[in-house]
Amino acid sequence: MPLAPRYLASLRACLPPAAIIDQTEALAAYECDGLSAYRQRPALVVLPETVEQVQAVMRHSAAAGVPIVGRGAGTGLSGGALPIETGIVLGLSRMDRILKLDPVARRAVVQPGVRNLAVSEAARSHGLYYAPDPSSQIACSIGGNVAENSGGVHCLKYGLTVHNTCQLKVVASDGSLLTIGGAGLDMPGFDLLALMHGSEGLLGIVVEATLKLLPLPAACGVVMGVFPSVEQAGDSVARVIGAGLVPAAIEMLDNPAVRAVEAFISSGYPLDAAAVLLCEVDGGAEEVAAQTAQVEALFREGGAQDIRIATDPDERARFWAGRKAAFPAAGRLAPDYYCIDGTIPRRHIGKVLESINRLGEKAGLAVANVFHAGDGNLHPLILYDASRPGELEKTEALGREILELCVAVGGTITGEHGVGVEKLDAMCGQFAAPELAQFQRLRRAFDPDRLLNPGKAIPTLARCAEHNAMHVHAGQLPFPELERF
Amino acid sequence: MPLAPRYLASLRACLPPAAIIDQTEALAAYECDGLSAYRQRPALVVLPETVEQVQAVMRHSAAAGVPIVGRGAGTGLSGGALPIETGIVLGLSRMDRILKLDPVARRAVVQPGVRNLAVSEAARSHGLYYAPDPSSQIACSIGGNVAENSGGVHCLKYGLTVHNTCQLKVVASDGSLLTIGGAGLDMPGFDLLALMHGSEGLLGIVVEATLKLLPLPAACGVVMGVFPSVEQAGDSVARVIGAGLVPAAIEMLDNPAVRAVEAFISSGYPLDAAAVLLCEVDGGAEEVAAQTAQVEALFREGGAQDIRIATDPDERARFWAGRKAAFPAAGRLAPDYYCIDGTIPRRHIGKVLESINRLGEKAGLAVANVFHAGDGNLHPLILYDASRPGELEKTEALGREILELCVAVGGTITGEHGVGVEKLDAMCGQFAAPELAQFQRLRRAFDPDRLLNPGKAIPTLARCAEHNAMHVHAGQLPFPELERF
Repeated sequence: MPLAPRYLASLRACLPPAAIIDQTEALAAYECDGLSAYRQRPALVVLPETVEQVQAVMRHSAAAGVPIVGRGAGTGLSGGALPIETGIVLGLSRMDRILKLDPVARRAVVQPGVRNLAVSEAARSHGLYYAPDPSSQIACSIGGNVAENSGGVHCLKYGLTVHNTCQLKVVASDGSLLTIGGAGLDMPGFDLLALMHGSEGLLGIVVEATLKLLPLPAACGVVMGVFPSVEQAGDSVARVIGAGLVPAAIEMLDNPAVRAVEAFISSGYPLDAAAVLLCEVDGGAEEVAAQTAQVEALFREGGAQDIRIATDPDERARFWAGRKAAFPAAGRLAPDYYCIDGTIPRRHIGKVLESINRLGEKAGLAVANVFHAGDGNLHPLILYDASRPGELEKTEALGREILELCVAVGGTITGEHGVGVEKLDAMCGQFAAPELAQFQRLRRAFDPDRLLNPGKAIPTLARCAEHNAMHVHAGQLPFPELERF
Repeated sequence: MPLAPRYLASLRACLPPAAIIDQTEALAAYECDGLSAYRQRPALVVLPETVEQVQAVMRHSAAAGVPIVGRGAGTGLSGGALPIETGIVLGLSRMDRILKLDPVARRAVVQPGVRNLAVSEAARSHGLYYAPDPSSQIACSIGGNVAENSGGVHCLKYGLTVHNTCQLKVVASDGSLLTIGGAGLDMPGFDLLALMHGSEGLLGIVVEATLKLLPLPAACGVVMGVFPSVEQAGDSVARVIGAGLVPAAIEMLDNPAVRAVEAFISSGYPLDAAAVLLCEVDGGAEEVAAQTAQVEALFREGGAQDIRIATDPDERARFWAGRKAAFPAAGRLAPDYYCIDGTIPRRHIGKVLESINRLGEKAGLAVANVFHAGDGNLHPLILYDASRPGELEKTEALGREILELCVAVGGTITGEHGVGVEKLDAMCGQFAAPELAQFQRLRRAFDPDRLLNPGKAIPTLARCAEHNAMHVHAGQLPFPELERF
C-alpha cells in the first residue's frame, strides 16, 4: 500500500529534497539493521537535519496515521530498526553535530546522529571521555545508544547509557518537544529520563542529548588469569566482586573462544586454557597498584594456573587484542554465527556455561563463549552454516533454550542488545500479564495511536497468549481493553 | 463526607480489626508528616500487614472511588503524606520485616516499613551496609525512601535510592501486583523501576524492595577546610570534583551555621570562618591516604586558612558532630525555621549563597546555610517566628524567591525532599506545558481515576495556568483532554 499523496506532499513541504529517499535502490540500504536475517523495505526514508523537521515529520505522520521507525546508525542487533512496509524510516544520521563541549561542567551536548566514539575523541584534548563503549562504538550513534540503553565492556564500573546522560530533548508522537532530565542528580516529576533509555523508539525520538564526561583515569592495569576450568574462572569473578573491588571490566573467554582467537591473531592466550579472564582496574596510580595485586592474589586463590599483568599501554592493548578479535575470529570457524545476549546472576556462570555446552552438543552445534563476566552478561556464539537445510532453525531453537535457561536461573533475556523483533516471544516468558499490560498502558500514554516502532520491544498480550505463556479465561485475555496493543 | 458503609464493610472484611483506625484521637497522629504547617485529618487509616491486604484495600478503594494516601514513617518534608479529607491513609508501618539478607549476592529483601538504618544494622555483621543515608535514617522507612528517591550525605558517591534498589513489588491502583526490575544491571521493557522512584505515591504502593548492599569501606578520612569566603569554599568544591575525585561526601556550612553549631555543641569550627567544608573520602587504605593528601592540597590552593584531617573513627565523628547538629542548632536561634531544598550547578554555589543572603536581608530574615555542596543541593534554613503576624508569609515568599533563583541558574526546585504539596506551584516554573501534560498522561496510565495521592507532586495544568506560568489561548488550556488531571 503506497503512502497517500497528500501525506507525501506534506513531507515534501517541510523537508529539503535531499532529505527524502524514495528510490527503490536507495531504500534497500535501510532494509535491515545488524540483525540481517530480518529484512523489510520501508515505504519511504526521511533524513531530517533539524529538530523542527523532526517535529513536522512526526506531526504529519500522526495526522496521516503512518508508522515511524526511528533509526540511528543501524548497528542494533535485535532488529529494533527493522522497517515497516507501510511506514517510514526516520533516520537521524544527518543530525551529527556536537553542539557544545563544556570541560568544566564535564558535559557534551550532542545531536542524536553523533557517533559514540566521536564524543570521546572530541573530549580527549580536555583529558575527558564518554564512558559507555559498546563494541560498535566506532559506528553506532548516541540516539541509538539511548534507545537501546547501550553498555559495553566498562559498564561494570561506569554504568549504562542511562547513568551517563543527564538531559534529553525528545520529539513526542504528536510532534511536541519535551525537555527531560536536567543538570542535577535528580529532577522533580516522574523520571522520564530513565524511561526513555532502552525504550527502543516506542516513546519518542531523541533529538538532543546532554552527556556526562569523565576524567581519563590516571592509571590502568590488566590482570590476565588462565584457568583449568570454567567453574574456577566463574568463581574467581565472584571472588573479585565479593572482595569489594569494582574493576573497570572483567571479561571471560572459554576454550573454544580462546582457540578461535589464537588461530586468528596470536595474542598469547594458552591453547589449553579452559577459560581466560581479563580484569581491568583503573584510577589513581596507588589504587591501581593495590588493586592489581589484590586481583592477582584472588585469581591465584581461585585456582589460576597462570597469571600475567599488563600496566603499560602496549602490553594492555596486546591483552585486549584477543578479546576484541573474538567475534571476527569466531566468524572464521563457521560460515555463520548467531550471537546470543542474556544475563545471569554471576554465581551461576560456571553451571550455566556447562549447561550451554550440553545443549549445544545435543543440537550438534558448536558454541564459543566470550562475554562480560563481571555483570553476568553472556554472549554465546552459536556456530552454524545457514546453507545447510534446517540449520538456521536448529540454531534459533538452541538460542531460545539458552535464553530460557537464563530466565530460569533468575536472569534476563537480554543484557544489552535489546528486544527489537528478535525477542518479542521471549518477553512473554520474562514478564507476567500485569507487567506486560502496564507496559502497554505506559506506551499508550506516549503514543496513543501506536505509530512509533509498532511490533517491537513489547509483545501484545494476544501474541503472548498464542505463545502459550499466558492464561486465557473463557476466550478473554486478562486485559481486554488493551487487546489491540 | 463520611465513607460509604458498604466500602467500610468491605475493608473490615479483608483487614484484621486492629488494622483499622477510625477513632478521632488516633487519627490525629496521621494529620501531617514532617511538613507540619499543613494538616488534615483523614477519613480513615488502614495499617495492612500483608501484600494481599494491600491489594484488597486498593481493589475496594478503586471500586468505591476513595482516594488513597500512602504513608511510610511520616518523616517526609514536603507534605507528600498529607491526608485527604475524603480519603484513607494507607500506612505501611506494620510491614516491617527484613525478609531475606543474602551476603553473597549482597542483597536485602525488605518490606516497605523497614527503617532505613535497620537495613545497615542487619547487614553490618556481614561487613555490608545500605548506602542511602537521609538525615532521618533512624526513623524513615524504605517504602518512603523509594517514593521520594531519598539521598543523603553520601549520595555524591553512592547515588540515590534508585541506584541502590534492584527490584520492587508494587500494588497497582487496580490491586494487581507488579514485579518490576530484577537481578541484572538492566531489564528489558520500559524502566518501571526508575519510574517508581520519586513518584511520591502517585503510581502505586511499594510492598517489597530488593536493596543492594555494599561492603563497608576499609578506610575513611575526613578533611576539614576553613575558608575566609563562601566563594573560595565553593570554588574549592569545584576544584575537588574537577580533579576527578569522587569523595563520599562534601558538606558546607556558612558562617551563620558555624556560629549556631558552636553555640550548641562546640565541635571546633572557628567562629570567624566564612565557610567550613567537610570532605570525606573512603575506599582502600592506599586510596584514602592518596586522596586525603590530594584534597588537602586542593583546599590549600583554593585559599583555605586552616585545614585539619581526621582518620580515626573518634576524630571523624567529632568533625561530623557539628554538621549533624546543624539543624537542631539552628532551631535554637529562632522559634521556627523553614528548611528550603533546591539544587544548583556546583559552579554557582558562591554566587547563589551571596544572592540568598541579599534576599534574606531584604526580607529582614536571617538565613543559615548547611548543605550537600558536592552535588549542589542547598538547604537554606530561614529563621523566623511564626507567632509574629505576617512572618510565616514573608518566610514562604523568601523560600519561593530562593527556589526561583535555583531554577534561574539551571537548577531544580527540589534536591531530595520531593514536591508533595509544598512545591506544586514551583513545578509550574520548573516545567513547560508539554512536560506537565506528559506527566499527567503517564500518571493516568497507572491510575486512570487519579485516586492515588491526588493533589501532590504533579500540578494540574489548570493550576499552572492560574499560577500564570502557562499561556492560555482563548480560555483553553493547551491540553484540554487533561483538564481534570
